[in-house]
Amino acid sequence: MALLDDLQWRYATKKYDPTKQVPKEYVDKIVEAARLAPTSSGLQPFRVIVVTDPELKEKLVPIASGQRVVADASHVLIFAAWDRYTEERIDDVYDRTTDERGLPRGRFGSYTDKLKALYLRQEADVNFAHAARQAYIGFGLSIAQAAELKVDATPMEGFSGPELDALLDLPSKGLRSVLMLPLGYRDAENDWLHPMKKVRSPREEFVLDGDRL
Amino acid sequence: MALLDDLQWRYATKKYDPTKQVPKEYVDKIVEAARLAPTSSGLQPFRVIVVTDPELKEKLVPIASGQRVVADASHVLIFAAWDRYTEERIDDVYDRTTDERGLPRGRFGSYTDKLKALYLRQEADVNFAHAARQAYIGFGLSIAQAAELKVDATPMEGFSGPELDALLDLPSKGLRSVLMLPLGYRDAENDWLHPMKKVRSPREEFVLDGDRL
Repeated sequence: MALLDDLQWRYATKKYDPTKQVPKEYVDKIVEAARLAPTSSGLQPFRVIVVTDPELKEKLVPIASGQRVVADASHVLIFAAWDRYTEERIDDVYDRTTDERGLPRGRFGSYTDKLKALYLRQEADVNFAHAARQAYIGFGLSIAQAAELKVDATPMEGFSGPELDALLDLPSKGLRSVLMLPLGYRDAENDWLHPMKKVRSPREEFVLDGDRL
Repeated sequence: MALLDDLQWRYATKKYDPTKQVPKEYVDKIVEAARLAPTSSGLQPFRVIVVTDPELKEKLVPIASGQRVVADASHVLIFAAWDRYTEERIDDVYDRTTDERGLPRGRFGSYTDKLKALYLRQEADVNFAHAARQAYIGFGLSIAQAAELKVDATPMEGFSGPELDALLDLPSKGLRSVLMLPLGYRDAENDWLHPMKKVRSPREEFVLDGDRL
């Protein structure tokens, strides 16, 4: 099915059937879409954490303002961004890039020098904000991939980042949580949002003709 | 073709064939994918501006650090986010939502009260940063839709936002530019990036097992 049909099919699922599991091969594809996402300068400054353990999912509930979706979902993906940019992180990405392309290391040195000059003089928080934005691109692609596989998903920003970071010990990995994406299969009968019409800004409001502004 | 194949096919095109135009129906679909994107609380706090005029595209070049892709591309999409959240903007979205669903206005009043309590006490810049993140979800979906249609695209953050805002008079519309997405057809022979292997973080680095952190 085409992407636009998939996007019409999906909705932010509010109630999962807790007895249904998403096959691992599907979860792998949903994560893979995020891994293939384009990011600023190709740095991929985020990671995807896959949670399946029932006890751990229960611990996510109070962190997500009591929302049961994170416990009833089959899997919960957590998108976490680099807490800062460092010289080592930038070099690691570009060393891998040149190695895989059969180019000498340092081939993109003038470019990485510019990146370092830009990022390393900025506060860690400013750089985290930039890294977090990149996670949203991958998040969008994971949502699309889930819909293609007819896997339900709930895009979520509404949780306590600091509490989630502490629970998963993310600071020790140089990461901070940004987004959650519970995955599973809808319990349509008990989901208040399921029968509701999808509403979006009309095209004439959403799209502007740049040639006539 | 499946999404993962489309994502493998695409790359950040660095050289377009300026003689090739993207059909309008394709551009419409690429914008539609962004319009259908999920966003925080369904606010859709961003817009897509479509630029095709050759003179205007030339004016984008100096704003984009001299990169010719914005002039050689068939179309340039500009993703611009709300410069702030306001009570009126929030009410407009929820009034449309209840109207289209045949529900009484104010049906989600306790929820919108919470949104207003949260956003209206924050600085406009903090709210713009939140709105801008939502634009990245739509951006990811537009990139996926372009790839599905075998339309090339160049995801771009590297331009002067204030200069672009001034050129398009975005402040008068309560918008600030966030991202550009030139669209067109690759000039593969003259694109240095085209023959290069796509490189990504290996899965074992990108994906973390949340159950064993």
